[in-house]
Amino acid sequence: MGSAFGNKVKISVFGESHGTAIGVVIDGLPSGEKIDMDEVYRQMARRAPGNDKTATPRKEADKPEILSGLLNGVTTGAPLAAVIYNTNTRSADYGNIMTSPRPGHSDYTAYLRYEGYNDVRGGGHFSGRLTANLVFAGAVIRQILKRRGIDIAAHIYSIGNAYDSPFEPTGISAELIERLNGEKFALVDPEKEDELRAQVDAVRVKGDSVGGIVECIVQGMPAGIGEPMFGGVENVISSIVFGVPAVKGIEFGSGFAGSHSVGSENNDEFYYDENGKVLTKTNNHGGALGGITSGMPILFRAAIKPTASISIEQNTIDLQSGENTKLSVKGRHDPCIVTRAVSVIEAAAAIAVINML
Amino acid sequence: MGSAFGNKVKISVFGESHGTAIGVVIDGLPSGEKIDMDEVYRQMARRAPGNDKTATPRKEADKPEILSGLLNGVTTGAPLAAVIYNTNTRSADYGNIMTSPRPGHSDYTAYLRYEGYNDVRGGGHFSGRLTANLVFAGAVIRQILKRRGIDIAAHIYSIGNAYDSPFEPTGISAELIERLNGEKFALVDPEKEDELRAQVDAVRVKGDSVGGIVECIVQGMPAGIGEPMFGGVENVISSIVFGVPAVKGIEFGSGFAGSHSVGSENNDEFYYDENGKVLTKTNNHGGALGGITSGMPILFRAAIKPTASISIEQNTIDLQSGENTKLSVKGRHDPCIVTRAVSVIEAAAAIAVINML
Amino acid sequence: MGSAFGNKVKISVFGESHGTAIGVVIDGLPSGEKIDMDEVYRQMARRAPGNDKTATPRKEADKPEILSGLLNGVTTGAPLAAVIYNTNTRSADYGNIMTSPRPGHSDYTAYLRYEGYNDVRGGGHFSGRLTANLVFAGAVIRQILKRRGIDIAAHIYSIGNAYDSPFEPTGISAELIERLNGEKFALVDPEKEDELRAQVDAVRVKGDSVGGIVECIVQGMPAGIGEPMFGGVENVISSIVFGVPAVKGIEFGSGFAGSHSVGSENNDEFYYDENGKVLTKTNNHGGALGGITSGMPILFRAAIKPTASISIEQNTIDLQSGENTKLSVKGRHDPCIVTRAVSVIEAAAAIAVINML
Amino acid sequence: MGSAFGNKVKISVFGESHGTAIGVVIDGLPSGEKIDMDEVYRQMARRAPGNDKTATPRKEADKPEILSGLLNGVTTGAPLAAVIYNTNTRSADYGNIMTSPRPGHSDYTAYLRYEGYNDVRGGGHFSGRLTANLVFAGAVIRQILKRRGIDIAAHIYSIGNAYDSPFEPTGISAELIERLNGEKFALVDPEKEDELRAQVDAVRVKGDSVGGIVECIVQGMPAGIGEPMFGGVENVISSIVFGVPAVKGIEFGSGFAGSHSVGSENNDEFYYDENGKVLTKTNNHGGALGGITSGMPILFRAAIKPTASISIEQNTIDLQSGENTKLSVKGRHDPCIVTRAVSVIEAAAAIAVINML
Repeated sequence: MGSAFGNKVKISVFGESHGTAIGVVIDGLPSGEKIDMDEVYRQMARRAPGNDKTATPRKEADKPEILSGLLNGVTTGAPLAAVIYNTNTRSADYGNIMTSPRPGHSDYTAYLRYEGYNDVRGGGHFSGRLTANLVFAGAVIRQILKRRGIDIAAHIYSIGNAYDSPFEPTGISAELIERLNGEKFALVDPEKEDELRAQVDAVRVKGDSVGGIVECIVQGMPAGIGEPMFGGVENVISSIVFGVPAVKGIEFGSGFAGSHSVGSENNDEFYYDENGKVLTKTNNHGGALGGITSGMPILFRAAIKPTASISIEQNTIDLQSGENTKLSVKGRHDPCIVTRAVSVIEAAAAIAVINML
Repeated sequence: MGSAFGNKVKISVFGESHGTAIGVVIDGLPSGEKIDMDEVYRQMARRAPGNDKTATPRKEADKPEILSGLLNGVTTGAPLAAVIYNTNTRSADYGNIMTSPRPGHSDYTAYLRYEGYNDVRGGGHFSGRLTANLVFAGAVIRQILKRRGIDIAAHIYSIGNAYDSPFEPTGISAELIERLNGEKFALVDPEKEDELRAQVDAVRVKGDSVGGIVECIVQGMPAGIGEPMFGGVENVISSIVFGVPAVKGIEFGSGFAGSHSVGSENNDEFYYDENGKVLTKTNNHGGALGGITSGMPILFRAAIKPTASISIEQNTIDLQSGENTKLSVKGRHDPCIVTRAVSVIEAAAAIAVINML
Repeated sequence: MGSAFGNKVKISVFGESHGTAIGVVIDGLPSGEKIDMDEVYRQMARRAPGNDKTATPRKEADKPEILSGLLNGVTTGAPLAAVIYNTNTRSADYGNIMTSPRPGHSDYTAYLRYEGYNDVRGGGHFSGRLTANLVFAGAVIRQILKRRGIDIAAHIYSIGNAYDSPFEPTGISAELIERLNGEKFALVDPEKEDELRAQVDAVRVKGDSVGGIVECIVQGMPAGIGEPMFGGVENVISSIVFGVPAVKGIEFGSGFAGSHSVGSENNDEFYYDENGKVLTKTNNHGGALGGITSGMPILFRAAIKPTASISIEQNTIDLQSGENTKLSVKGRHDPCIVTRAVSVIEAAAAIAVINML
Repeated sequence: MGSAFGNKVKISVFGESHGTAIGVVIDGLPSGEKIDMDEVYRQMARRAPGNDKTATPRKEADKPEILSGLLNGVTTGAPLAAVIYNTNTRSADYGNIMTSPRPGHSDYTAYLRYEGYNDVRGGGHFSGRLTANLVFAGAVIRQILKRRGIDIAAHIYSIGNAYDSPFEPTGISAELIERLNGEKFALVDPEKEDELRAQVDAVRVKGDSVGGIVECIVQGMPAGIGEPMFGGVENVISSIVFGVPAVKGIEFGSGFAGSHSVGSENNDEFYYDENGKVLTKTNNHGGALGGITSGMPILFRAAIKPTASISIEQNTIDLQSGENTKLSVKGRHDPCIVTRAVSVIEAAAAIAVINML
């Protein structure tokens, strides 16, 4: 029953990649919030495959139909439900998955979990396509957060061994947020694009895939938000971000690097600025101390593993014959999902944040 | 309301460092489980400060009193409650915290969150002392898990820039688990002890602190356990592990390193072993694919920042005067909590695991 | 965020009476369960208005479209989502509600709760039409429960001051269950039909409405199910049954009558039957003791108030002018919903029960 | 895992009647709330057995020890934990229960649920003694609610076939609330006391027991509070009130009686009073419409069955021999718990209410 998230604003995600439709119910939104659907579609287009050459060639309309919760473009307070009908499905591409699970993919574990009854076509409920629901929900919620002064942006921190410039941890400009929110290949430093794309091109031609890191910032978060222990900022954000397929690590502020440093360097000194606002000179804590927001930006990075579906031949098992075999994923090969993951991570952050307010 | 965790076996933690007592209620344990309290105390002693020279000098008896849920040493099925009375408290050491929050500590954020009413003595509800409750709960639960074939072990992966040998990702021996479960300075390679202790000694003399990484393995986990999306293994484990004070990052399997690799290397190939059991040759996925266990060990690492309380003078603010000031934490300086965090992380893993079964 | 229910099998209900569609997501169903959709439609037809002359004249197709979670009629284990598009909506009938809330209806409280942004047409999210989602979910779940030996049936216990024969508290026959599960005007004693219909007819001609009681039985429930205190059978069932519009009371076993009796009469004596099975001679406890099932049928009754929408003129307020006024609901007058509530209560019981197993 | 309740202010109850202690953790209280412990003890004394001759003769000190969450009598915002040590336990009285479950009691179902490992002494975790925890939590919470203008009072509506005067449904006076909150035998009309006590005396001499009804009112509740469907006022209140031992029914407003009436009588007409406040002339809806508060008092009645433990001989089973047998509960016979249930129901209402605000 892991397809729902949130105690204040609950999202309930449904759908299978090649079923009738995918969709999401968002329960607990405040009433009276005007939602700009064009902006929602713009965010969804950033995630949609086929929009950028680093991505899988499958095209999706991904235009959600609103079923409830909006009246004349304004939230009613009732659950907001949206569906996206699946139109462009090529089930035949996946004919062999039932027998031979892809290494690194959920094929095998889903087979065990659902005793073979799960819809295997296109990854079924585990498909990356389901993240369209997250982006939809996140895009709605981000408009509500923005009205409360909270902005979210993410960028491609790295692909393989190439890096964008990192976010300035103590905060980024409104202009950068605005620009990144419109990008399909979101970089702090656009001059790095060729270098990062080269990492994808290098694996695409070999039928291989490559991973990367997405960095995300939440600005304008009020101070004093969050709960101690298991209800802290990091707990809540990580518990949704690991729901984004292929995420295998998350770190806040200085994160793993900070674990190699000393307190006198890693501690963020407090000071009053000229307006009497409490700030820290650095942001190694990533916006939360003891799980509670400090007023500094929430800053985190998510590690995304290389896509499991590659056309290079790999060893695997044949669940029907019970013998070892080999597999090469044909027809659909996704060399890098980091680009598209940017908008999904932003959406996940938004859903986490509204559940902490 | 973040002090409770779990939907199947719920732990509810209470207490403040210098209040009357700390304690925990564990609700949902199976009935009829024999609990060896000596083993529980042994685990608690591993965490207790004063037991190892890397730790804070404060001595704690930390002997929990069982209030309910056990009859003749066997679980009754009713909530198991335990309290540890606070005896050795030196409140005067913290006299200045109310005015000047320690950089890197929850002093400031707790002050905001609770509008100044929180108990600041010793960190109050945010004190690392509260982790004694986790170790207690974890030690009880680990006995129940062990009876179901599930073992948990952790070690000091690194302190500062010194490293222990890592766990073999595909599994470690029963002997190593047994040995580590009894260690206060838990290392895969005991010959590394001097090198790691040297990192602590170097900062102790300066009044500074140092961080580190704890690596944890869960062996014997059945395959097919977990939920998709937000109920996956990584989601559940991270949502409790970030409740351990000072944890700022977590990664599963190859984690962040994996994000720099390619699919043909990072994918774990499946095979049938001689007994027809499905295994993977490597364990870059860290035991979960699509959030669901594969039958391989769950493997994760948690990044722990350097302790915030250092005696080196730092800049901070004076909340009473509203002016910038300086602070040096006297009387209680904790140079490294990584050693003690090992048993806390194991406990957190145990609590997470029993909530997934 | 009250539109979701359940911790094991979670239903998430959405929709507004005159919006685009209503629907439900059911998360946590076991995989591999064959669902007979004709039987589901049959249950939905029992609730649908227009099928029985005691009901509102509005006709609904109420044919749900399955979006996910079923493959070849078998549950995949992923969330099962269904939508029912709204086709026959006559918004003009409700033109005056925004200004003048119907006495006894949620018009006024929803207006406050959602600050006037809620969809008032047809009651919006509070419409009885939303119970179609419950009946859908319940009909799916009842097939799964039936396979585990658990049957549910309900009947019209009373309408106004006329009564059907009550259920035999210690159990009813399989034939009676089968018959009631197919009835639109469900009575233990069909000869009472005229008498009960007469209660409805009497108020219909006056433009008034009448309430009633639905009695429900759950048979085949295993003994020893449920949690102490707040997780007991009565807690779980009541917390969903009060989600059925117009329910204002619930009692289990001898209920309110039992509160007027003495222990020597109300206590149910245990005995071993000829097969060594533990039974009670009477069932005043209604199937649960200390919140935990005894193995006897779960028996409860829900009190349903008279429908709020009546065409008799009543005093109310004008929210726009701030003055007292009068209201007579025209065009849509629903004299009695007890008949249709039978299948909704059964569905609610099913959803509660699967969350306790 | 049913021993916890609440999503905003969570109470986690532990203890067994004859174990070391009982207690409760209250997580989520606002910080900065002054708690008058004398008032808390006064409320607990109202529930304590031995204080009134209608109750069981066992004496309890029932003086809770505060372990955390209060500093100088003010809430810190951290979980407030309290324990009551068990001192006066006479386990020998219950020597035969393990073999022969009391009819009407949870002995048998607890035995099944916990596979015989539950602490049977005095009812263990199912003992009415555990309600001291509820009264403690409720008494703390009621002080917080009172500061927000919300008052709660209950009275003995009936014992057996004798009735107190009912509450005026549209509201009772501050004086009556004040008086009832101090009473151990709480009646609207004190002249009815003899008549109601006579019902208890009549069964006491026979070794029998008698049930009753408690009526409870919540005044000053803001309008517009609550969630639709499963998060309504009735859902939340019933889901905790059924956690009070022996409660077998609950009704709101006109409840079951209302189900026998017609809409034109049962609908509560709205009007603006002289101050422009919206009220209803009657309160058949019991304070909630569509699950959401109307601003009128929340009014409900809980049906309490006769105590199960009677000294009259009854038929039961011998779980050890597997044969039918007879049982007469000696040594501790509780003829009526309705009197003491008054303060427990008030406490339950308070806990429910704070979770809706």
